[in-house]
Amino acid sequence: MREIHVLNGPNLNLLGRREPAIYGTATLADIEADLAKIGAARGVSLTFRQTNSEGELVTWVQEAGLAGAGVILNAGAYTHTSIALHDAIRASGAKVVEIHLSNIHGRETFRQHSFISSAALGVIFGFGALGHRLALEAPLSLAEHNRAAS
Amino acid sequence: MREIHVLNGPNLNLLGRREPAIYGTATLADIEADLAKIGAARGVSLTFRQTNSEGELVTWVQEAGLAGAGVILNAGAYTHTSIALHDAIRASGAKVVEIHLSNIHGRETFRQHSFISSAALGVIFGFGALGHRLALEAPLSLAEHNRAAS
Amino acid sequence: MREIHVLNGPNLNLLGRREPAIYGTATLADIEADLAKIGAARGVSLTFRQTNSEGELVTWVQEAGLAGAGVILNAGAYTHTSIALHDAIRASGAKVVEIHLSNIHGRETFRQHSFISSAALGVIFGFGALGHRLALEAPLSLAEHNRAAS
Amino acid sequence: MREIHVLNGPNLNLLGRREPAIYGTATLADIEADLAKIGAARGVSLTFRQTNSEGELVTWVQEAGLAGAGVILNAGAYTHTSIALHDAIRASGAKVVEIHLSNIHGRETFRQHSFISSAALGVIFGFGALGHRLALEAPLSLAEHNRAAS
Amino acid sequence: MREIHVLNGPNLNLLGRREPAIYGTATLADIEADLAKIGAARGVSLTFRQTNSEGELVTWVQEAGLAGAGVILNAGAYTHTSIALHDAIRASGAKVVEIHLSNIHGRETFRQHSFISSAALGVIFGFGALGHRLALEAPLSLAEHNRAAS
Amino acid sequence: MREIHVLNGPNLNLLGRREPAIYGTATLADIEADLAKIGAARGVSLTFRQTNSEGELVTWVQEAGLAGAGVILNAGAYTHTSIALHDAIRASGAKVVEIHLSNIHGRETFRQHSFISSAALGVIFGFGALGHRLALEAPLSLAEHNRAAS
Amino acid sequence: MREIHVLNGPNLNLLGRREPAIYGTATLADIEADLAKIGAARGVSLTFRQTNSEGELVTWVQEAGLAGAGVILNAGAYTHTSIALHDAIRASGAKVVEIHLSNIHGRETFRQHSFISSAALGVIFGFGALGHRLALEAPLSLAEHNRAAS
Amino acid sequence: MREIHVLNGPNLNLLGRREPAIYGTATLADIEADLAKIGAARGVSLTFRQTNSEGELVTWVQEAGLAGAGVILNAGAYTHTSIALHDAIRASGAKVVEIHLSNIHGRETFRQHSFISSAALGVIFGFGALGHRLALEAPLSLAEHNRAAS
Amino acid sequence: MREIHVLNGPNLNLLGRREPAIYGTATLADIEADLAKIGAARGVSLTFRQTNSEGELVTWVQEAGLAGAGVILNAGAYTHTSIALHDAIRASGAKVVEIHLSNIHGRETFRQHSFISSAALGVIFGFGALGHRLALEAPLSLAEHNRAAS
Amino acid sequence: MREIHVLNGPNLNLLGRREPAIYGTATLADIEADLAKIGAARGVSLTFRQTNSEGELVTWVQEAGLAGAGVILNAGAYTHTSIALHDAIRASGAKVVEIHLSNIHGRETFRQHSFISSAALGVIFGFGALGHRLALEAPLSLAEHNRAAS
Amino acid sequence: MREIHVLNGPNLNLLGRREPAIYGTATLADIEADLAKIGAARGVSLTFRQTNSEGELVTWVQEAGLAGAGVILNAGAYTHTSIALHDAIRASGAKVVEIHLSNIHGRETFRQHSFISSAALGVIFGFGALGHRLALEAPLSLAEHNRAAS
Amino acid sequence: MREIHVLNGPNLNLLGRREPAIYGTATLADIEADLAKIGAARGVSLTFRQTNSEGELVTWVQEAGLAGAGVILNAGAYTHTSIALHDAIRASGAKVVEIHLSNIHGRETFRQHSFISSAALGVIFGFGALGHRLALEAPLSLAEHNRAAS
Repeated sequence: MREIHVLNGPNLNLLGRREPAIYGTATLADIEADLAKIGAARGVSLTFRQTNSEGELVTWVQEAGLAGAGVILNAGAYTHTSIALHDAIRASGAKVVEIHLSNIHGRETFRQHSFISSAALGVIFGFGALGHRLALEAPLSLAEHNRAAS
Repeated sequence: MREIHVLNGPNLNLLGRREPAIYGTATLADIEADLAKIGAARGVSLTFRQTNSEGELVTWVQEAGLAGAGVILNAGAYTHTSIALHDAIRASGAKVVEIHLSNIHGRETFRQHSFISSAALGVIFGFGALGHRLALEAPLSLAEHNRAAS
Repeated sequence: MREIHVLNGPNLNLLGRREPAIYGTATLADIEADLAKIGAARGVSLTFRQTNSEGELVTWVQEAGLAGAGVILNAGAYTHTSIALHDAIRASGAKVVEIHLSNIHGRETFRQHSFISSAALGVIFGFGALGHRLALEAPLSLAEHNRAAS
Repeated sequence: MREIHVLNGPNLNLLGRREPAIYGTATLADIEADLAKIGAARGVSLTFRQTNSEGELVTWVQEAGLAGAGVILNAGAYTHTSIALHDAIRASGAKVVEIHLSNIHGRETFRQHSFISSAALGVIFGFGALGHRLALEAPLSLAEHNRAAS
Repeated sequence: MREIHVLNGPNLNLLGRREPAIYGTATLADIEADLAKIGAARGVSLTFRQTNSEGELVTWVQEAGLAGAGVILNAGAYTHTSIALHDAIRASGAKVVEIHLSNIHGRETFRQHSFISSAALGVIFGFGALGHRLALEAPLSLAEHNRAAS
Repeated sequence: MREIHVLNGPNLNLLGRREPAIYGTATLADIEADLAKIGAARGVSLTFRQTNSEGELVTWVQEAGLAGAGVILNAGAYTHTSIALHDAIRASGAKVVEIHLSNIHGRETFRQHSFISSAALGVIFGFGALGHRLALEAPLSLAEHNRAAS
Repeated sequence: MREIHVLNGPNLNLLGRREPAIYGTATLADIEADLAKIGAARGVSLTFRQTNSEGELVTWVQEAGLAGAGVILNAGAYTHTSIALHDAIRASGAKVVEIHLSNIHGRETFRQHSFISSAALGVIFGFGALGHRLALEAPLSLAEHNRAAS
Repeated sequence: MREIHVLNGPNLNLLGRREPAIYGTATLADIEADLAKIGAARGVSLTFRQTNSEGELVTWVQEAGLAGAGVILNAGAYTHTSIALHDAIRASGAKVVEIHLSNIHGRETFRQHSFISSAALGVIFGFGALGHRLALEAPLSLAEHNRAAS
Repeated sequence: MREIHVLNGPNLNLLGRREPAIYGTATLADIEADLAKIGAARGVSLTFRQTNSEGELVTWVQEAGLAGAGVILNAGAYTHTSIALHDAIRASGAKVVEIHLSNIHGRETFRQHSFISSAALGVIFGFGALGHRLALEAPLSLAEHNRAAS
Repeated sequence: MREIHVLNGPNLNLLGRREPAIYGTATLADIEADLAKIGAARGVSLTFRQTNSEGELVTWVQEAGLAGAGVILNAGAYTHTSIALHDAIRASGAKVVEIHLSNIHGRETFRQHSFISSAALGVIFGFGALGHRLALEAPLSLAEHNRAAS
Repeated sequence: MREIHVLNGPNLNLLGRREPAIYGTATLADIEADLAKIGAARGVSLTFRQTNSEGELVTWVQEAGLAGAGVILNAGAYTHTSIALHDAIRASGAKVVEIHLSNIHGRETFRQHSFISSAALGVIFGFGALGHRLALEAPLSLAEHNRAAS
Repeated sequence: MREIHVLNGPNLNLLGRREPAIYGTATLADIEADLAKIGAARGVSLTFRQTNSEGELVTWVQEAGLAGAGVILNAGAYTHTSIALHDAIRASGAKVVEIHLSNIHGRETFRQHSFISSAALGVIFGFGALGHRLALEAPLSLAEHNRAAS
């Protein structure tokens, strides 16, 4: 998997500006720059996109899935309400790693169910900005592991 | 009712590409072509639209309702989460036939409630692509039946 | 599918007599006569039965299923309480189109779950007497569609 | 209302034989004889019927309703499970007084909801065999009260 | 049981003034006068009390119970919220017939549970002002029945 | 206990015809023949009955209970919905062993509660046709055990 | 509406003494003085009452309703438990504006349902002492608006 | 804490009269006399009050809290329904030890939640009349313990 | 707070056209004109925006919050389903007054929870078009009150 | 299946000592001796183990499963709380017959769900000590039945 | 009752080390030393045990119960999940006083139900280390009280 | 954090033996060897432990927390039932990364809640054996990131 789309949902454009106790001080641009450096070093093509619109996020997941690209998806609040995103993953066959910066299991009740999780390969929650790195590591390690094994 | 809008919601643009066991192999274009032929034969003007955006679907239902057109609506996953669509039907007075290709009652729990149904004239679920034909038949037969009775 | 059993459950013998605001003014005899005409024109053998007994309805569904006949089933109030009917459909392999004259999704809470739906091919609710026509149309169109495609 | 049908549902044929701590020692025949005497004295025609079959009970409620007769209904366990009986009352327009010998509100949870109650004129629970007398008194007193008032 | 307390709870002082579609046009004074006449004819001493206070109603139930008087109790809205009344009946040993003018089972969900019912001898709901008569009839008939049987 | 009634409920007449993955290939006649042989060898009189009607099943349980016969009861889908059967067991004093061929705890949610169980002596689920043998063994072993102990 | 009753329920006599982080530092007397000034300026007669007793609050709502006065009601904790207050509003026809100083939707779960709201004209929550001013403004503005429009 | 108010709620005036299996045979006067003796010996001023009125109990808790007195509170049935008492404790800052004579966790479901507990210092349930002694011991021991530690 | 954004969500563009029994006859343009006049008189800059798109509403709330403007928000049906709006308010620090024209507590169950309320300063429901005036009054009065107090 | 492990969980070491009304008077040693005799007669090797530790029970189930031995498992209270036992059965492939001496369906609510049942071959509840015999009979009869059929 | 076992469950070995805001600064050894002094003074033999194992706690409760010793039990987190402990109390007849240092009713939802409470004599929650003293006082006072009364 | 304990709970000793479709073919020894190699390369001391006992797992978490070691915890089925583990993490201050090999959000309902998650730093589910690597990466990357930033 040489191409990975890093898709961020609603309000993640405000990362680093407010509520640092929950979300940290890194901005989305900081995180994307950090990932871009790693991607360049490991030979992975990365695409970065953010939107507040559920429909646009659905479309981007479809595009990634149909293109065979991997997806690192932080769907923000749509995580908890969007069956359309669940369907987009299944219908497009996208290989999705779901991440959240905070540990949603330790927050409000309405944040404790995810419609993404049951359609994702795996989930990584609670590691702050580091979560993106781990999410990127997952498919890369897996690929290297498979190469080594073959 | 001589004008009917056929409105499709999120992920229905992928019809026929994936998960044929659930949704069949006909693409949305195939279905629309099939309906267009029937519409032409029966003298009905048909408008076809698809979107992944809830807000756009709300706007289209409003337009159909205000124009006095009938609506065949497959709201996809928004079926289960969108009170805004329910309100759009009621507020615009749209006459809606709700359809789903699969029988949502036999699927995951979160697909078994529809916010559309209680605002729709009637519902047709589970007949695959044929469902669109039945949905088109409903207002036409009704009209003919009424003409015959008068 | 050349033989279709039209099975009606409890209280449908009173159709057209009371609560016309909900169920319309057509009697069950009117509806059956209407279907019989269509069946004759399309070469389908139709059998009409009505009962207030859950057990008898179970037996009739079994008979239809074992005979390979299609079933148009309005199970009335047993729709919401009868696991036995659900099992009869599955155990006999009956191909059932479930109908209701009213849109049960817009009525009392206790009418919003159907034990029939998850065992049926498809469901048609809310079109009044016309629903029977659409239910009859479903297998016929499908058959013609299949013939045309072959 | 000069004609009243006294309809008893499942297991009430065993009244007086077992569980007297809950239901008392009077048999159904005793109760019917007692009511018959009162009916004769007050000029009311009484019809007595008991069945273990839900469908038969549905049919009898329909017959009473269509005939304009009043109904004293102890639906036994069907009280808690039968939407079909609820519908039979509404569809036939039967004027039903619902009774139970025991106070169902003080028993198991599954006996604390009645599908009959919301379709009945009124309910009388917990007075044992005397409940039938009170149930008979209800329409008679009402009629006399109305005559006196006119 | 020669002494009966007729206890009415909150808002029943407004009977006959408003919402006659639900509660009828008889005032509480009308009902009490009607019962007084019957009581006089049958040799029963009747005490009438109404209050908007839960605590006062608790005290009155205690007084009736300790005095060995019967109780006809319409606890109004406290029916659905007052465990204190439930306890007062049990702790004082009061013999209570619970009544409501309307059929609470056909109204809002929050009116469908009664804390009184499981501590009462029996319940009579839905007969309007006539309910008080039936409630008075219950212990009187029972007493006569017992006398006749002895 | 020398007489045992083997009562089977709805859809068990189709045993062995369909869904063998769940219910096995033995027909009800096969099972009854197998039991009859064992009964003959052990000196037990066996009566076999099957019905799709809840009311008839209620009546048969009553008859067995009043006759002092033991009951092996597979109530099929009525297991999950019939309070009337629960009452029939209690009211007639029938000694019931409840069986199911499949392990209902591993199936759909709506099959995981039984109204029969809390009124039965014991339950045996999941052993297929062998369950009937075990159910027959239960009272026989118990009797022999008691004889040996006396 | 020239006469308005300002009714406060349990514990509001302690306003300004404790928990200022939730309820502010103004005492109930401060708030009433502030309203009185506005009322005098706008020609409205204001009546102020506070009680810890549910029954007394029921009586006061009845009095206001029967007198045709408007009501600004902060029922304190009875908001969440008192069906009797709900009934008093409906039965007396009182025109009630419901207020709370804190935003009850952001507090404990048991404070998030109000039995008053569904019987009130409107609700105003979360504006602290200012809420009383807005509540007073509501009927006054409406009246002026109506005068201007006529 | 030299002053302690012992507050008892609804139906506790009947202690010792009825239901001794649940509540014991000691009357409220017996318990108060027992506590008075201990209080005198330990130099604590005790105030005893009982009421059936929720509002009065709210007022008494407020008075104790504002006076800085400790409170031993058995709120009877209001334990389970009164948010107003919860608020009175919080708003007045009363230091409350909650007691019940019976172990409410072993009784009816509706007695298993207490609105008092989450606002109280601690709870003591199930020790009968002895519970009052333990409740009195709690603050006294604590005070002595603190004195010894200083 | 000298700048206020008045943001309206889905279907509010249809105000005044349909369902006047629920929403009144004023159009959104009427309401905005009314507010504009008041704003001009009180020296407040007002911005008016309406959209059917959840994502666009999220973006507008963010913009208002980041600009330090106040917000009057009627999120329409997204009120009940949008955690993204809840997050937008918190993440941007927007000071939001939530309004609804109708009293949502007296309507369908699915309209009785708001994800906006727990993030808003306060809520104003049920006053029709007047609600916008009260919502505007809230921050203005508060500001004046604070000026007077300083 | 020639080797069977009879595993008993917490508190079953106290069998026969207390609560004989529920569990009977036979001790665990009595039951094991009885089974040992039968096993010897039928050529089955039996292993008996009891523990109060969930972890130890998990280990024993694993050992039986990996050894290909059958298991008769009465997990006591862990039946209702232990997903670890469920997993041990599935992960080790153990063939488990689940038994309980009492009929858990007729006891407290928290005893009515079993995490064992959905992983077991079958369940036998309510036959007291005899249940162990039936549980032993199940695999033996099955084996003999299969031998006879081959 | 001259012998008392003081049994502490999981994580109570860490008392005094962490989270002093919830559990205080006294270690378990401090508390045991304090109790030992009191026990010595009052002539009671005390046994102290702590374990993180549910099974071991079950065994210790059994031992205490069979030996006729009283039990002061803080089952820690097993309080909320262990039906096995509930059964151990009932099966061994142990006389248990349940304690918790914190008031579990004011903490997370999952700590608000106790499986111990309904099997215990009484409960004492929220008094910190002092709770052990009160728990010890309970049986001692009761014994003295009984001696005085005899 | 130079020391990390890798703790595995019930049934993980069977990894690689069964159900490879869910858990993969690597044994626990394989995974530990893989981690040991990485740890050696990165200078981290790793401790490996597995147990089927909840109490032992509680003790090990306590030990790791008190020693200041990091924890990679796969609590197996205790994840869903063990409040004791939740408390052990909080009480010992252990820094825990929670992992599961499968994506528990896509499995049975009873596996979708974790008592570990709300006390853990973060969670990693669904990556099979690779999850352990990612879990090890998390604290190491964080440490390197922090070193680089200082």
